[in-house]
Amino acid sequence: MAVRTVPFQVSMRGGTQIENVTKPVQDALSGAGLTGGIVTVFVKHTTASMMIIEDEPGIRADTKTFWDRTVPADPAWEHNRRNAGEDNGHSHLRGQLQGPSVTIPFAQGALVLGIWQQIVLVDFDTRPRTRELIIQIMGE
Amino acid sequence: MAVRTVPFQVSMRGGTQIENVTKPVQDALSGAGLTGGIVTVFVKHTTASMMIIEDEPGIRADTKTFWDRTVPADPAWEHNRRNAGEDNGHSHLRGQLQGPSVTIPFAQGALVLGIWQQIVLVDFDTRPRTRELIIQIMGE
Amino acid sequence: MAVRTVPFQVSMRGGTQIENVTKPVQDALSGAGLTGGIVTVFVKHTTASMMIIEDEPGIRADTKTFWDRTVPADPAWEHNRRNAGEDNGHSHLRGQLQGPSVTIPFAQGALVLGIWQQIVLVDFDTRPRTRELIIQIMGE
Repeated sequence: MAVRTVPFQVSMRGGTQIENVTKPVQDALSGAGLTGGIVTVFVKHTTASMMIIEDEPGIRADTKTFWDRTVPADPAWEHNRRNAGEDNGHSHLRGQLQGPSVTIPFAQGALVLGIWQQIVLVDFDTRPRTRELIIQIMGE
Repeated sequence: MAVRTVPFQVSMRGGTQIENVTKPVQDALSGAGLTGGIVTVFVKHTTASMMIIEDEPGIRADTKTFWDRTVPADPAWEHNRRNAGEDNGHSHLRGQLQGPSVTIPFAQGALVLGIWQQIVLVDFDTRPRTRELIIQIMGE
Repeated sequence: MAVRTVPFQVSMRGGTQIENVTKPVQDALSGAGLTGGIVTVFVKHTTASMMIIEDEPGIRADTKTFWDRTVPADPAWEHNRRNAGEDNGHSHLRGQLQGPSVTIPFAQGALVLGIWQQIVLVDFDTRPRTRELIIQIMGE
């Protein structure tokens, strides 16, 4: 049993932008030389999240529409009212509900993802930022 | 420390149907012969999710009501507009927010679930499908 | 590779109250004497959840506002109608969507949390309760 920690970075623009990170996760797993276990992909920020989705343009557009309806940008969020210069209260609420991590089993050296499942980073913030992620691989 | 991978299938009807899978997860854990660690239950589909709930008929009904209000079926979802024959844009949005996995600790050979916590599969799709799940057990 | 199971309790008042538990999780990790792996923090209740947030008063207030809008308390929830004395149907729906656990990688003996990320327990129930949590640490 072993643990491998693989950090990586993604440049994002915000605004519920979605970036597919399935390949870097698969590459990290290949490099780990392990057969079975779990991979945790964790984003070290409160206004971005990890998701598993069918990654096609319609779903990307619908994801933005859903969040804009359900947690709209609004100067009235207390995070914006109480903290000078902040405009991303909605980004925090989206990020904390969608969550900072996904956990995926692997077996025979490969992720057990279904045929349509892709691992993506979604950035809910209101400005471009470089996002730091950790791929934590545990197994035998 | 060891890893056990236990696949299983559930026939589902869709429409936010809930199926209790606590027993198969407990059986897989018993068969693993491990004392302490974590179990990850992962569904290999983008329009179904894992949840931990109090499983009684009122909660099952309310879960369907909540999702029908919050992410309604709608021909206007871009997933439906851009992809011929698709009508399950809402199913994708629900599945990616609820998420494809739950992780539960175990100790002394048993899941540490609270007295009311049950592990369930929820199927958000619009037609019957057989769903593939992985029970990934890691521990010592 | 080893597993450490650290139970702890938090007295909560309900009503979407947020309590920061980052310190007890860090203390449990320090006590485990492990270098790298993952920590799963799991709450053993269906009307409370774990979250990772920027923990400041504005976000705490906005979190309550968001849930009161999105899943309001309502005598019409079937959980309340079908079960005598129950008034917490909304608490269940919030708890099952936010989820009972968070998983955080650790490396060089420390959680890899980003600078603003704090681990919190949120209690959605309608009355004060003592909440039981499990900190499950796995690693080497």
